[in-house]
Amino acid sequence: MEALPNVLAQRYASDAMNAIWSPEGRIVAERELWIAVLKAQRDLGVAVPKGAIEKFEAVKDQVNLASIAERERITRHDVKARIEEFCDLAGAEGVHQGMTSRDLTENVEQLLVLRALELTREKGAAALAALSRRAEQYKDLAITARTHNVAAQATTYGRRLAMFGEELLLGWEALDRFIDNYPARGLKGAVGTQLDPLNLLGGDVGKVAELEKRFATHLGFEKVLDAPGQVYPRSIDFGCISALYQLASGPASFARTLRLMAGHELASEGFLPGQVGSSAMPHKMNSRSCERVDGFHLIIRGHLTMAAGLAGDQWNEGDVSCSVVRRVALPDSFLAIDGLFETLLTVFGQMEANPAVIAQENAHYLPFLLTTTVLMAAVKAGAGRETAHEVIKEHAVATARDIRSGNTKDNDLFTRLANDDRLPLDQAALDKILENGAKATGMAAAQTDAFVGRVEQVLKRFPDAKDYQPGAIL
Amino acid sequence: MEALPNVLAQRYASDAMNAIWSPEGRIVAERELWIAVLKAQRDLGVAVPKGAIEKFEAVKDQVNLASIAERERITRHDVKARIEEFCDLAGAEGVHQGMTSRDLTENVEQLLVLRALELTREKGAAALAALSRRAEQYKDLAITARTHNVAAQATTYGRRLAMFGEELLLGWEALDRFIDNYPARGLKGAVGTQLDPLNLLGGDVGKVAELEKRFATHLGFEKVLDAPGQVYPRSIDFGCISALYQLASGPASFARTLRLMAGHELASEGFLPGQVGSSAMPHKMNSRSCERVDGFHLIIRGHLTMAAGLAGDQWNEGDVSCSVVRRVALPDSFLAIDGLFETLLTVFGQMEANPAVIAQENAHYLPFLLTTTVLMAAVKAGAGRETAHEVIKEHAVATARDIRSGNTKDNDLFTRLANDDRLPLDQAALDKILENGAKATGMAAAQTDAFVGRVEQVLKRFPDAKDYQPGAIL
Amino acid sequence: MEALPNVLAQRYASDAMNAIWSPEGRIVAERELWIAVLKAQRDLGVAVPKGAIEKFEAVKDQVNLASIAERERITRHDVKARIEEFCDLAGAEGVHQGMTSRDLTENVEQLLVLRALELTREKGAAALAALSRRAEQYKDLAITARTHNVAAQATTYGRRLAMFGEELLLGWEALDRFIDNYPARGLKGAVGTQLDPLNLLGGDVGKVAELEKRFATHLGFEKVLDAPGQVYPRSIDFGCISALYQLASGPASFARTLRLMAGHELASEGFLPGQVGSSAMPHKMNSRSCERVDGFHLIIRGHLTMAAGLAGDQWNEGDVSCSVVRRVALPDSFLAIDGLFETLLTVFGQMEANPAVIAQENAHYLPFLLTTTVLMAAVKAGAGRETAHEVIKEHAVATARDIRSGNTKDNDLFTRLANDDRLPLDQAALDKILENGAKATGMAAAQTDAFVGRVEQVLKRFPDAKDYQPGAIL
Amino acid sequence: MEALPNVLAQRYASDAMNAIWSPEGRIVAERELWIAVLKAQRDLGVAVPKGAIEKFEAVKDQVNLASIAERERITRHDVKARIEEFCDLAGAEGVHQGMTSRDLTENVEQLLVLRALELTREKGAAALAALSRRAEQYKDLAITARTHNVAAQATTYGRRLAMFGEELLLGWEALDRFIDNYPARGLKGAVGTQLDPLNLLGGDVGKVAELEKRFATHLGFEKVLDAPGQVYPRSIDFGCISALYQLASGPASFARTLRLMAGHELASEGFLPGQVGSSAMPHKMNSRSCERVDGFHLIIRGHLTMAAGLAGDQWNEGDVSCSVVRRVALPDSFLAIDGLFETLLTVFGQMEANPAVIAQENAHYLPFLLTTTVLMAAVKAGAGRETAHEVIKEHAVATARDIRSGNTKDNDLFTRLANDDRLPLDQAALDKILENGAKATGMAAAQTDAFVGRVEQVLKRFPDAKDYQPGAIL
Repeated sequence: MEALPNVLAQRYASDAMNAIWSPEGRIVAERELWIAVLKAQRDLGVAVPKGAIEKFEAVKDQVNLASIAERERITRHDVKARIEEFCDLAGAEGVHQGMTSRDLTENVEQLLVLRALELTREKGAAALAALSRRAEQYKDLAITARTHNVAAQATTYGRRLAMFGEELLLGWEALDRFIDNYPARGLKGAVGTQLDPLNLLGGDVGKVAELEKRFATHLGFEKVLDAPGQVYPRSIDFGCISALYQLASGPASFARTLRLMAGHELASEGFLPGQVGSSAMPHKMNSRSCERVDGFHLIIRGHLTMAAGLAGDQWNEGDVSCSVVRRVALPDSFLAIDGLFETLLTVFGQMEANPAVIAQENAHYLPFLLTTTVLMAAVKAGAGRETAHEVIKEHAVATARDIRSGNTKDNDLFTRLANDDRLPLDQAALDKILENGAKATGMAAAQTDAFVGRVEQVLKRFPDAKDYQPGAIL
Repeated sequence: MEALPNVLAQRYASDAMNAIWSPEGRIVAERELWIAVLKAQRDLGVAVPKGAIEKFEAVKDQVNLASIAERERITRHDVKARIEEFCDLAGAEGVHQGMTSRDLTENVEQLLVLRALELTREKGAAALAALSRRAEQYKDLAITARTHNVAAQATTYGRRLAMFGEELLLGWEALDRFIDNYPARGLKGAVGTQLDPLNLLGGDVGKVAELEKRFATHLGFEKVLDAPGQVYPRSIDFGCISALYQLASGPASFARTLRLMAGHELASEGFLPGQVGSSAMPHKMNSRSCERVDGFHLIIRGHLTMAAGLAGDQWNEGDVSCSVVRRVALPDSFLAIDGLFETLLTVFGQMEANPAVIAQENAHYLPFLLTTTVLMAAVKAGAGRETAHEVIKEHAVATARDIRSGNTKDNDLFTRLANDDRLPLDQAALDKILENGAKATGMAAAQTDAFVGRVEQVLKRFPDAKDYQPGAIL
Repeated sequence: MEALPNVLAQRYASDAMNAIWSPEGRIVAERELWIAVLKAQRDLGVAVPKGAIEKFEAVKDQVNLASIAERERITRHDVKARIEEFCDLAGAEGVHQGMTSRDLTENVEQLLVLRALELTREKGAAALAALSRRAEQYKDLAITARTHNVAAQATTYGRRLAMFGEELLLGWEALDRFIDNYPARGLKGAVGTQLDPLNLLGGDVGKVAELEKRFATHLGFEKVLDAPGQVYPRSIDFGCISALYQLASGPASFARTLRLMAGHELASEGFLPGQVGSSAMPHKMNSRSCERVDGFHLIIRGHLTMAAGLAGDQWNEGDVSCSVVRRVALPDSFLAIDGLFETLLTVFGQMEANPAVIAQENAHYLPFLLTTTVLMAAVKAGAGRETAHEVIKEHAVATARDIRSGNTKDNDLFTRLANDDRLPLDQAALDKILENGAKATGMAAAQTDAFVGRVEQVLKRFPDAKDYQPGAIL
Repeated sequence: MEALPNVLAQRYASDAMNAIWSPEGRIVAERELWIAVLKAQRDLGVAVPKGAIEKFEAVKDQVNLASIAERERITRHDVKARIEEFCDLAGAEGVHQGMTSRDLTENVEQLLVLRALELTREKGAAALAALSRRAEQYKDLAITARTHNVAAQATTYGRRLAMFGEELLLGWEALDRFIDNYPARGLKGAVGTQLDPLNLLGGDVGKVAELEKRFATHLGFEKVLDAPGQVYPRSIDFGCISALYQLASGPASFARTLRLMAGHELASEGFLPGQVGSSAMPHKMNSRSCERVDGFHLIIRGHLTMAAGLAGDQWNEGDVSCSVVRRVALPDSFLAIDGLFETLLTVFGQMEANPAVIAQENAHYLPFLLTTTVLMAAVKAGAGRETAHEVIKEHAVATARDIRSGNTKDNDLFTRLANDDRLPLDQAALDKILENGAKATGMAAAQTDAFVGRVEQVLKRFPDAKDYQPGAIL
């Protein structure tokens, strides 16, 4: 029987994210950590056999899972098995000195988290770049904005995209800050008091601090906790998955809205050349990718629940109720956000707008959206305010009813108004209002520009992001 | 690079649960469904080639995933590829007639869910059997009951186990009812109106109903939905995972309490012969399995969040935002509950109580727990109620303070009371109270019996459950 | 400063639900419980002063919160204050004998929960009745079913409502089963061993059991737990709120779909006579109530999280970490579901369909939905299958593109097909297909009838439900 | 019937937090916002009647809810009623010009959120100050650290407190960053395009930007969104409640651990002078406040679920499914965190340690904790490593078994070792190890100092925090 695969890894996440969380990736990260500790120990005067570090470095990428498993069957101790394998490969000794299992496992996990965070930040920047291009492209395409899912006022499609873009950007910035403040547990020993490193370094408090600093720097951590227990506080994991969830929220809202727009045929997530919807119904253009984006968002919400249940539940210096939970929630939340971005970037690459249908919708609703403008014009032209308001309301409601009841197909509100003597506005005046109204998108363009400008700042830090191409999706 | 495994499947779940959700298991279930439909169609007069059903049945377990993948690369349609493979293997035709993709996938998924539910029910019965044996074993072992984690009154260890057992039983009964009422979506076509089966069966409404009934019976469903859309209501998935979560709650509370008891050395989850805690600290008996049980409980909570997000979010006749979510939440919640029961059954098999430590704790707290009894005896012996109350309170508080401050090591409250002239009770009278008090476990035994009796009823329906042995755990 | 009100109680829930959870309601329930215990004790031979029960019954509804608060300020013990108030009002003594605080508070809370469950079941039945009427009304109104939010096949509006109705019914039945199996904690004493009642009843185990049975029957509980601790298992609260959430899911999906339909002007949640949308935009018919239904669903999900966090977290015989959580989650989840039903019933009462717009949509999509029918007809008329498929696909895609690009306004696919010589079907033949296609709603009517029939069964048990009128909503 | 109160507000939250979310508080905030807009408009050339601003400012705190309700009954429009009331009170006009309802309600809500965030930050700083004092106090009190709830190594109580303190500090810093980056929606009009302000300011884009900047500055916002829709992105609310949850996690872990310690009588949450546990059991010192802290943590988790369900669910420019949800989740999550801090600060003020019991525990476990030290000493003294390891393990396991079986009461491992000839260590040598071992708390003191030092930095910014006294709690 074939082993059950991790479905998020197998079907949705990129190779890069898979590599971080793969069994091999974990082994290599562990070895890098051992080497980092060894270097720091050597620099601080601990005896390290000459050439050992170089030997370890030379073989750190040679991962043979079967061999490790074989050793574990004999030693019945997983960490011991991996130490032996590494030492034998290198023909050297000395790793894991002055360390407990948790010094290894907690920090390795954090190293993987940190790398996954950085990869996610890069993907997020790529998504910002792609969305920013689309916002720019559609900056002046007027559409009917909706509140309560009902036509409300004019906006532009680019501006709508900038709206979701800004939410994505907020999430991205929060993630960026989270990364900046992400602290390693450090080499704290069995219960956190650093007893072993202190003994190893002859009781020299300053050296212990320096050891940790160097260890962290080697691995890319800017901060290290001062006083964790056996484990680092699990609210840090919660903060991490919470940041992922927030990051996914802008995309989820965008995807939901595109699914709505597709229902009106205003836009679609696009199709590859040659693709024609379902074979039975060639016209059908399903928003499958957008639905999937919303699905990933919900999956991460589930992982957030797991992390939320660990936070605030530390007993004394720590337990391992969290162990099985973190084995699921940490990799899987990153695999999910990665799948989300791969899918989202595909949508950004292929999405299409249907300007003709958009124009029909605008024409259909515009007279309703301009009733307050008509009122002002009527008053200006000499009508009594109350009378004008009553007349307009009367016709607006009647027109809406006639459309819904099928008596009228097109929105002829302005014709009705022009034909009503109580209102001092003729067809020409009303046509003028309609013409101007179609362009009444306020600061939509400037707001879009503001978003585009902010993304440019992001891309200065992550210049490769704008060229990132997602892998092929299912 | 090795593919990321599903960690719950690989490390924790039993082979039986893995088999249900494995790629092969899914293929076989799909074929069984096709055969069930074919049989029902034949019975209702649809032309089915002679011998076809037998041919399909003969090969249904021959699963070659590579061959199917190869076909999919050519047809670019997953269901089509699997039909072709099955037909070629059997040398027959006719499956999937009058069916849409969702008729296949929704019902197959439900078939897997149903089997997983039934396996879980069996495991739950096994857990009840094992816990019931332990409750019986410790029925008369008096322990100090705690509320607010502080000594409160006497109970027995068996009765405490019966308490968690009854919670498990409540969850099990709820699961049992859920299974009884679990409805299949049925063969409803693209949007649920059964247009295709109706056409296939010549517009005969009665035959369509009969087709569905037979199809369901063949597969083991007792109920079929009347009017689902493209998909069955996702609140059914929610109900399912909610039932799993409830089922896991009794075990989670038991595990948490055993972790607490282990901290007091009153009991432990036990060890295999030869096992001696950690190598560095041979005395250390960590409640790793109990911690893991609590971990699984939390994991299912995460899956519950996923299912809760799907429920109530159906757009029209259905969408597939749920697709990626259900690929994760459905198998994984069952793999988690299965891992939980494997672990729990191991604990039930190995758990140990330390009667000597328990007796020490009882002795330590008993005088405190009996102050109200002393009060009644003093009043009976002629003391004024208010005076007696004041005297007892004075000594109780003083004794508690002296113990906490180290002035007293043993709880000498009764000696102090015997020595106080204001109280008309001598040492002998107080010793008598103490002796009786140690046995004041009320209806503990009868309550334990009641639990054991209810489990016996369950085991009449599931007689194999009491012999189930969990697999070896990590 | 005015005290912050419970917003769910104040703005949304009915008077009946408010009454259950009001401070007065709780006091009265407590007194009813005391009286029930007293009666049972009397029946079993415990000395109860003559006439006391009648005196207590006579004053049980006289609630003076200020007086109780005043007493509490003196006694500094809430239960004691409430006992004194009750006894003074009645001029009698004897309540709370052989009971601990938890015997009172746990059971009273369960009594409130039970009543709230029953009220909710009644409201759910009312919602089923109202939805069933709507399903009947629109049983034959053909609409365009959508999957992926895109037109897929024909169905009827009544059948769509029956689909959500069946989900509601599933939730209702689950709630009904939950009520049937809802067990009281019973009079179990401080840690659950029934020590006090056993002493009170002279050590007679049979009498203790009988006491509990009578107590439960007086209050309307059919089941009592055998072996709870200080508290009943909190997974029962989880099961309760889970049932509420499931019950809310059908309505939530219905509401979401009506919001979608309103966006297409196919239907609306309706308006009171004279109501005309927003004052600035009189045409605007916002689905505010449906949005609110979805909001309530989410609120209950939050309460479910709270209850999920309590389940499986029992320490020993119980703690009160749950106390503050249950003070929020229990009343508020019921207030939310009650607000949901009040809102939903208002929508069911006022909702409107726009058949003319529906017909336009059907006409717009129907040709696409019938392409497989055209294919079969063409083959029957002598065309080669592959050729016919290619021709139809070519025109379908071109038509869809032309509509989206504005080249065509109406769906002229069938005209294009009639004009293509490669297809042996003329305009008349195609018109015939179109005419039949509009009615191709399969078993929609029969499915609707099935739902209506099942609701009738429910209403036999709850005959008043069909006349229930919701209160005025904001 | 008395209205149901908001239980979090009534029982647990401080007056200051209640004031923010009270009906009056909301009215005043609204008026402050109107005044801020008016000032900004005036500065940018919009005609504002002379003296109007002063008149409005003079009456802004005069809130008469009954009068407003009376007006609403007539106008049937809540915002209109509040405008009229304010204008009549002031004898002035001009507020709400160029604004839509959402310009008011979204920003007012954010203003309340911002104030509640700031109050929470202050409370968090007070908690850090109090916890830091306790960490300092117990810096050198050696205790037995536990992992898996089992004795593991020595630490100090102060260091354990610093561990939870650091988690609190991490949460506090995250909250602080959240506040720094919290953006107002701003005056964006009906769908976000700022059409109305743009018209009001004569189409001057620069002035519109300036208006918003001034408005924000007046109210204390440092950032304003560029392109929100009708509503600000709901993932901001999610970020907010997520920050509260993270902030609550350190306290929740601390509380859970203190509940564990109280179960061992090592420490308690303390009692007021004169308080003596329950009246029936005077010795009983329940950790009720700590349990409550854990309860608040869970309540916020429920609100997090609500907020998580709103994030990523925006349809187009926005809906109000969120309305009822936010009415519950926003105030209540702040009321809960406020109740948490009031309770926590009370615990910090009253908590007690029992050094004598702690010393007993240390003595009981210390020999076990020092087995690796004994091994090293034995090897140094000439023993073979393997032999020594075997001897030590043999005695350690036997001692543990004897203690659990009652054969031994005290931990006599070192006596056994001294008496074993295979080990070249006499009683004196072993006593020396024991003596040093009791002090082997590694860097515990330095780590505590590090925490205290970081808190001092926080208190430089919030100097009043260290003197904050919580209100009386129930």
